[in-house]
Amino acid sequence: MDRVAIIGASMTEFGERDAWLRELLAQAGRECLADAGASPDDVDHLYVSNMASGEFEGQTGVPNALAHDLGALPAYTQRVDQTSASGGAGIYAAWQSVASGASDLTLLVGGEKMTHKTTAEATDVIASLTHPVEYKHGVTLPSFAGLTARRYLHEYDAPRESLAKVAVKNHKNGLDNPHAQFRKEVDLDTVMESPIVADPLRLYDFCPITDGSAGLLFCPESVAEEYVPEDEYTVVSGIGGATDTHVVHERDDPTVMGAAVESSDDAYEMAGRGPDDVDVAELHDMFTILEFLQSEAVGFFEQGEGWKAVEEGVTDRDGELPINTSGGLKSKGHPLGASGVAQAYEIHQQLLGEAGDRQVDCEVGLACNVGGFGNCVTTTILEEP
Amino acid sequence: MDRVAIIGASMTEFGERDAWLRELLAQAGRECLADAGASPDDVDHLYVSNMASGEFEGQTGVPNALAHDLGALPAYTQRVDQTSASGGAGIYAAWQSVASGASDLTLLVGGEKMTHKTTAEATDVIASLTHPVEYKHGVTLPSFAGLTARRYLHEYDAPRESLAKVAVKNHKNGLDNPHAQFRKEVDLDTVMESPIVADPLRLYDFCPITDGSAGLLFCPESVAEEYVPEDEYTVVSGIGGATDTHVVHERDDPTVMGAAVESSDDAYEMAGRGPDDVDVAELHDMFTILEFLQSEAVGFFEQGEGWKAVEEGVTDRDGELPINTSGGLKSKGHPLGASGVAQAYEIHQQLLGEAGDRQVDCEVGLACNVGGFGNCVTTTILEEP
Repeated sequence: MDRVAIIGASMTEFGERDAWLRELLAQAGRECLADAGASPDDVDHLYVSNMASGEFEGQTGVPNALAHDLGALPAYTQRVDQTSASGGAGIYAAWQSVASGASDLTLLVGGEKMTHKTTAEATDVIASLTHPVEYKHGVTLPSFAGLTARRYLHEYDAPRESLAKVAVKNHKNGLDNPHAQFRKEVDLDTVMESPIVADPLRLYDFCPITDGSAGLLFCPESVAEEYVPEDEYTVVSGIGGATDTHVVHERDDPTVMGAAVESSDDAYEMAGRGPDDVDVAELHDMFTILEFLQSEAVGFFEQGEGWKAVEEGVTDRDGELPINTSGGLKSKGHPLGASGVAQAYEIHQQLLGEAGDRQVDCEVGLACNVGGFGNCVTTTILEEP
Repeated sequence: MDRVAIIGASMTEFGERDAWLRELLAQAGRECLADAGASPDDVDHLYVSNMASGEFEGQTGVPNALAHDLGALPAYTQRVDQTSASGGAGIYAAWQSVASGASDLTLLVGGEKMTHKTTAEATDVIASLTHPVEYKHGVTLPSFAGLTARRYLHEYDAPRESLAKVAVKNHKNGLDNPHAQFRKEVDLDTVMESPIVADPLRLYDFCPITDGSAGLLFCPESVAEEYVPEDEYTVVSGIGGATDTHVVHERDDPTVMGAAVESSDDAYEMAGRGPDDVDVAELHDMFTILEFLQSEAVGFFEQGEGWKAVEEGVTDRDGELPINTSGGLKSKGHPLGASGVAQAYEIHQQLLGEAGDRQVDCEVGLACNVGGFGNCVTTTILEEP
């Protein structure tokens, strides 16, 4: 079967942006098309990954507006929502549109505009994805993270500092990402002494509220070279998505991210790959603890051993398996619908050797995008052709 | 290529429902699986067509919750939003999931819960899909309908009564639909003397605010008979989607629904069919005028001639080309995310000969689902295998 290629990618500056969602999406869309030298006229499917433009901006129908703004009419449009995993779900939708033969050129743009709201307002929109009973009892995502972190540290004899080292590592990586929201290093003491948010997790264990957008352009591999030379595209060799219980406390083991296990299994099977083949990965570090859980769930490390890899520098940029070379959600920021797309943007740039100061040696990369507290996960494997 | 089959279908009662969206979706989901004798365990992709659960209920992440409620974990889930065309977009997403080989069994459930809001509140949520400038000037969808109806009547010398006859016809059809919100006939005088909403359109030219849900179950045709006998499934022989300008007044001719022209062209081409092959159709009669526009855009009648077909009884249930045998959005109701799914439900039932008192003679059916004021349209052609 003809594989699905990614021939263009883009990412706007993440942070506090003085622009509405439509403008952010249009920026990423235009830059993505330019990256591939493609015309908006050629786009026949346009997907927008976005969780909550209605709640954040009182604006819906954004994909139609974007098709209009980009000059891509009469391209088919659709909004893809899978809460904070909307970006990864958008990749799956785009992949399916090409793999099914429905589309010859699909543009995916993910984005969110959030910083005009207070942190409390934004958190409340995000918390609307939790089970109503959990929500009523105040169990927001940060409090789940605190509870899970406590359990993980206890269960696997991990030191509190190992979590902080995720933040230190990712901030260090973000320093070299011109698009990152926070381009500053933090040291262990700064993380360990920052204000408590959900004990044992502190302020620096959490990603920020962010505005931003990112884009990817997909086509059948057989026509990729009509747009770009062979060394300027990547292929989606594997992709999978899965869900876990909506009520988090119903899970057998809160330290096992079941949907990441299932979705990565499917992605590996499609790619004919295993965890050992992966050279670089972007994991959804909305909270530091999530990087441990995913690094184990996708099979990079044994259960309960993810923290050791961080302690030993295995996941550093110069380590054996660099994780979150982009700076991760932690330092890069987390504009919900954009995040999964921006993860794939980073892997794509790394595979093409275009990651600048963040460049690592790699041929196969993996991105894991998480919705809710592992409620839904999409895992994507990208490779050089 | 293996075609995509629909092996199960369901539709809840439409109207004012004392149930939340999750419950409505679960009801349609369970009934759809039961219709095919399929187990939730076998579902690997679950799509939810829904425009605005966040705005209407303060609840997001509904597809994850539904996978949980139905016992379909760890099925991949995603919400499909294309405003009031979310149902048709869900059919396209489900089709792509099967046609791409990603899924062996995809459940699509569309639904919306709206009636707990006032009409003004609900209209405001829907109006958030319009262009911000049009919105600020008060150009809601009903006012677009009024403006367009006036133009149509003037341009094509159509009598005002022809619009009213759409309402009369569809209410008559809805009388025999046990799921319809309004099961009552209305006569021409009732429509013509009802309160003016957007001159020349009156109350009975508009669909109501509705709660409800509908489901469809998709698989590759090659395995359809593992679930049901050959005479109990249909195939999606053609499908297409397209957009038109987001700013309605930028269109060359407001009486031509460009996205319906484009999307039906694509659907006909895929099916190897033309308008003359269609025996029964469901068109998106959110406003009576839209039935005229779509009946012309999808090629059933020449431009400006759709009103004559209604006057002459061509689109009556016993006419040459019955349109909206279900009662249409006008009498059946319009729970946004459910409507496109429910259109296909009606065509599916008609093709299987299971439409009860509404049954017409047919082998090929078409459904046209419209978002905004023709901003985005998905057209689906279903056939007997």
